[in-house]
Amino acid sequence: MKRIGILTSGGDAPGMNAAIRSVVRSGLSQGIEVFGIYDGYQGLVEDKIRQLDRGDVSDIIIQGGTVLGSARLEEFKLLEIRQKAIENLKKHEIEGLVVIGGDGSYRGALALHEMGVPCIGVPATIDNDIASTEYSIGFDTALNTVIDNVDKLRDTSSSHHRCSVIEVMGNRCGDLAIYAGITTGAELIITKETGYDEMEVLERLQHIEESKKKRHAMVIISEKITDVELLAEKISRHTNFSGRSTVLGHIQRGGSPTARDRILATQFGDRAVQLLLNDVSGQCVAVNHGEIVSIDLPEALKIPRRSRKDLFELHERLV
Amino acid sequence: MKRIGILTSGGDAPGMNAAIRSVVRSGLSQGIEVFGIYDGYQGLVEDKIRQLDRGDVSDIIIQGGTVLGSARLEEFKLLEIRQKAIENLKKHEIEGLVVIGGDGSYRGALALHEMGVPCIGVPATIDNDIASTEYSIGFDTALNTVIDNVDKLRDTSSSHHRCSVIEVMGNRCGDLAIYAGITTGAELIITKETGYDEMEVLERLQHIEESKKKRHAMVIISEKITDVELLAEKISRHTNFSGRSTVLGHIQRGGSPTARDRILATQFGDRAVQLLLNDVSGQCVAVNHGEIVSIDLPEALKIPRRSRKDLFELHERLV
Amino acid sequence: MKRIGILTSGGDAPGMNAAIRSVVRSGLSQGIEVFGIYDGYQGLVEDKIRQLDRGDVSDIIIQGGTVLGSARLEEFKLLEIRQKAIENLKKHEIEGLVVIGGDGSYRGALALHEMGVPCIGVPATIDNDIASTEYSIGFDTALNTVIDNVDKLRDTSSSHHRCSVIEVMGNRCGDLAIYAGITTGAELIITKETGYDEMEVLERLQHIEESKKKRHAMVIISEKITDVELLAEKISRHTNFSGRSTVLGHIQRGGSPTARDRILATQFGDRAVQLLLNDVSGQCVAVNHGEIVSIDLPEALKIPRRSRKDLFELHERLV
Amino acid sequence: MKRIGILTSGGDAPGMNAAIRSVVRSGLSQGIEVFGIYDGYQGLVEDKIRQLDRGDVSDIIIQGGTVLGSARLEEFKLLEIRQKAIENLKKHEIEGLVVIGGDGSYRGALALHEMGVPCIGVPATIDNDIASTEYSIGFDTALNTVIDNVDKLRDTSSSHHRCSVIEVMGNRCGDLAIYAGITTGAELIITKETGYDEMEVLERLQHIEESKKKRHAMVIISEKITDVELLAEKISRHTNFSGRSTVLGHIQRGGSPTARDRILATQFGDRAVQLLLNDVSGQCVAVNHGEIVSIDLPEALKIPRRSRKDLFELHERLV
Repeated sequence: MKRIGILTSGGDAPGMNAAIRSVVRSGLSQGIEVFGIYDGYQGLVEDKIRQLDRGDVSDIIIQGGTVLGSARLEEFKLLEIRQKAIENLKKHEIEGLVVIGGDGSYRGALALHEMGVPCIGVPATIDNDIASTEYSIGFDTALNTVIDNVDKLRDTSSSHHRCSVIEVMGNRCGDLAIYAGITTGAELIITKETGYDEMEVLERLQHIEESKKKRHAMVIISEKITDVELLAEKISRHTNFSGRSTVLGHIQRGGSPTARDRILATQFGDRAVQLLLNDVSGQCVAVNHGEIVSIDLPEALKIPRRSRKDLFELHERLV
Repeated sequence: MKRIGILTSGGDAPGMNAAIRSVVRSGLSQGIEVFGIYDGYQGLVEDKIRQLDRGDVSDIIIQGGTVLGSARLEEFKLLEIRQKAIENLKKHEIEGLVVIGGDGSYRGALALHEMGVPCIGVPATIDNDIASTEYSIGFDTALNTVIDNVDKLRDTSSSHHRCSVIEVMGNRCGDLAIYAGITTGAELIITKETGYDEMEVLERLQHIEESKKKRHAMVIISEKITDVELLAEKISRHTNFSGRSTVLGHIQRGGSPTARDRILATQFGDRAVQLLLNDVSGQCVAVNHGEIVSIDLPEALKIPRRSRKDLFELHERLV
Repeated sequence: MKRIGILTSGGDAPGMNAAIRSVVRSGLSQGIEVFGIYDGYQGLVEDKIRQLDRGDVSDIIIQGGTVLGSARLEEFKLLEIRQKAIENLKKHEIEGLVVIGGDGSYRGALALHEMGVPCIGVPATIDNDIASTEYSIGFDTALNTVIDNVDKLRDTSSSHHRCSVIEVMGNRCGDLAIYAGITTGAELIITKETGYDEMEVLERLQHIEESKKKRHAMVIISEKITDVELLAEKISRHTNFSGRSTVLGHIQRGGSPTARDRILATQFGDRAVQLLLNDVSGQCVAVNHGEIVSIDLPEALKIPRRSRKDLFELHERLV
Repeated sequence: MKRIGILTSGGDAPGMNAAIRSVVRSGLSQGIEVFGIYDGYQGLVEDKIRQLDRGDVSDIIIQGGTVLGSARLEEFKLLEIRQKAIENLKKHEIEGLVVIGGDGSYRGALALHEMGVPCIGVPATIDNDIASTEYSIGFDTALNTVIDNVDKLRDTSSSHHRCSVIEVMGNRCGDLAIYAGITTGAELIITKETGYDEMEVLERLQHIEESKKKRHAMVIISEKITDVELLAEKISRHTNFSGRSTVLGHIQRGGSPTARDRILATQFGDRAVQLLLNDVSGQCVAVNHGEIVSIDLPEALKIPRRSRKDLFELHERLV
């Protein structure tokens, strides 16, 4: 293998740049050329491809987002679109591909692999919703962004006898909510796994206010579960707290990556290059029992989501 | 004067604690006792009052919010309610009052002053909407919180060819929007002063996308001007950008105060004590031409809001 | 078991408070009383012990340092001193002890265990120098503090054609240096494991300056390896860079704990309580292959330090 | 005037990039071309000059350091060296110059002005040691960096009954020390203006420990006053505190600029362009009574340093 390509796909995540840098530098130091493909699979189809050297990735390890850009391309499931992509790879004599993204990006990589293009997936999503890995790039940064902001809401909540309802990202996977809830000492955590019963939420908050003499309370809730503004209004009406809602939204995607995301991304990127150099294809890298491993993509895509039952029980003991 | 009271009123602002600490310490070191009144004018009426010593305010200079709590009390405009407040002051032999808050709090202080209670107002609001002072406590912290978050949105926006619409606090006063817009290099700034013409906004964004080849754009807008979620949808429909909205909300109220808010609050609190000790009443402290001054409350409440025309022109030259 | 005690010992680390909160809350919710022992083993000997309730640990999850205080007590290896400690435990009817600290603290806990006091160790050190666990509480926060500061030095270094030499904590264990070096893209990393050859360092820097056209370079070095101020002077004399040294020092111990340290500390504290409730003694909790486990203290204290050869090789590929 | 140049000189300061962006954008929008001169006066002499367009300064408002680089050039006081500089300006048809830096940089600008080159100085130093302006670019960011770090030391100090001695930048001017001391609630502040009497320092600390029952104490001291490591040792020997020293060093120069530094730099840069366009030369911009003004350079260089007597008295009342 003499030339490999790299692209980022799907929602961006802090640490993608660290992974890009790692792929480029690791490739170059092992004698292969690395090509950046801009704007994900779309750029692959539209031939937005250009060679990257050492200097192109200098200092990007500290930047959020992705210097390669990202996009979603529904049409990539069409054979003729993928054939166009493969033509572009051939034109540049690119023999292997590193795809940084989530499960959707993995499906594209698997399809290319099945058409004969060596592909390795690298997991990156802020909400940790890739079941094949314990941690994906971006989760640690997003989680720290959430707790920084929740810590700020705590200041103002306790000044006003308030219950703050904070909506965080992650619908398929509630990890941001459960980890943020435990690390900020939130009173209630609501995710797809816990289910949502409005009456029960209001009763528990009223109980907390009465029994624990709390000056403030916090509810962390995953996106797309309920309208948090309405929930806050009901809290004001039905409990002694004054309810206020905050939707953290896209700020969870940004920021300079944390140490953990930088190191994980660096290790993943390097491992992806090693795999391609060892003629492995159709796999993704992952953290399993705390170690960097690789898994066949079809298997990875079938792994069921982890339950966080143990963490919810931990939260119940401490709240 | 042997005993003074202190309360925080209205929306909380980072730096209120620094002001409280300053009033307590400055008072104690000049031989007077200081009483904390909890939950604003409501606590004054309900006699939530307790003496504060040096240790009670140790280390609070670094905390957001207000350790005294805050509340709004519409009924304080009623004479009989204020008489109850004055009775409580008399009960504790409190001879003067420092009121930390905004224009609404000043009106309460003025009413007490007119009933014979020496009162000094200290300006604290995160949106800088107190016309009598160039800067109020909390504005600098809130502004830095805004720009930290906008800098994060920039990471993710430029990865996705996106236009971010960011709603910040401040309806009566657009300072957060205009200062944040200039300091983050936002493409558009919309406040009450600029007015809002949806068609013009969409046209300008489309023009920016076409003429300047920008990968991302940012619009900073004051609260209560338009529904930013709808605006973002229209941007997606009518321009080449993908529009996304973020409402920063209550996180703008929180966080450890910046250096500027800590020093300003400290100077204001100390000056308020000096004024009471010099038998001044019915005034508020303020920054005027960069200096700490004091102004009669009736005059302060009549000062018209500053225009930021010069800042909007500066922004036009640089955008 | 009805009553347990908790103490923090040795150097403080961010996340100790999260562990204290977890022990207290987990104990209370399982029907046992929890006593805080102040200032480590010294407080145990001097009977600085007081019962903790839920409210005593409210909101401390976000605070650095340890609310229980910490101290080193050399004399604790003396039998008669430990007997005094055991008398105090008996006086308060404390039947089990959670000791948060490093290897030194573990030796104290082991000695108490051997005298019949049920003890569980919880690893907390900012430099990750406890060989029995992959991660100790405080390491992630300290590492993020280091990279935040190194990122700041990068700004100013690249403005001045400078080589920054940054000394970080960790003599026995170079993890802070190697992780910080990789995550900041430092040119050179020097730890006890790499050894130190001044001539080679100067030659490599000169080579980097000449061959890679770098505007700045960074050297991360563990404490107690060499005098970094002198090294910086030699860099100025013998290379084309202007050398400057920074000793990060005690700021690495402070700050609000990161998400990872909060969750790890919370899980460790809860597990320690479970172990005591299950009549386990003489063990420490640890992370092993990414899972929370417990290990007999004598075995834990014999585990050799991990080599970071793989990380140094990774760094070589990317630098 | 059709073409102007811009350079940064002396020690770098956060916000210099915001000033560069402002000069470039303000110039371009008013129809003049702007040239960047790299590495200060040295680059002017060595003809490191290149035209800047809008895109060259995109997004630099958030970056610390200076994209133009900075250097000191002692030889610039020599006439023949300055003549070489003027030749280079003529070669590029640059008719006016904006010089961002401190008093030393102003002297260079004044010398060029006297040789017929229109020059405007813009104040930027992290230690606020330019007597002609109330605030210089970079001071607010450096001050916030100091207080963030002191707040971290507070966590660990109070865990260990410690006295932290923190050395901050600023020898000629003690503003960083006095502002940081007040805003962090430090027990002692030592600057050139206060003078230094070791015995008195030790006595005051011992007095504080005994009389105020403090668990920790902090001393903020300007650089080049005494050896802080030795002072910390003496504190350990002669008081009940355990003394530890921290030299904050170059991290005070780095980091993304605060809102205040960004806005100040933006206003200064724009004003400098307006002055050149109005055929003004030999002046510097400044903050005076909270307003942006301009002052003749010879006068500016003669203004005596401000005394901070009022701030020291404020500190005494509150400590």
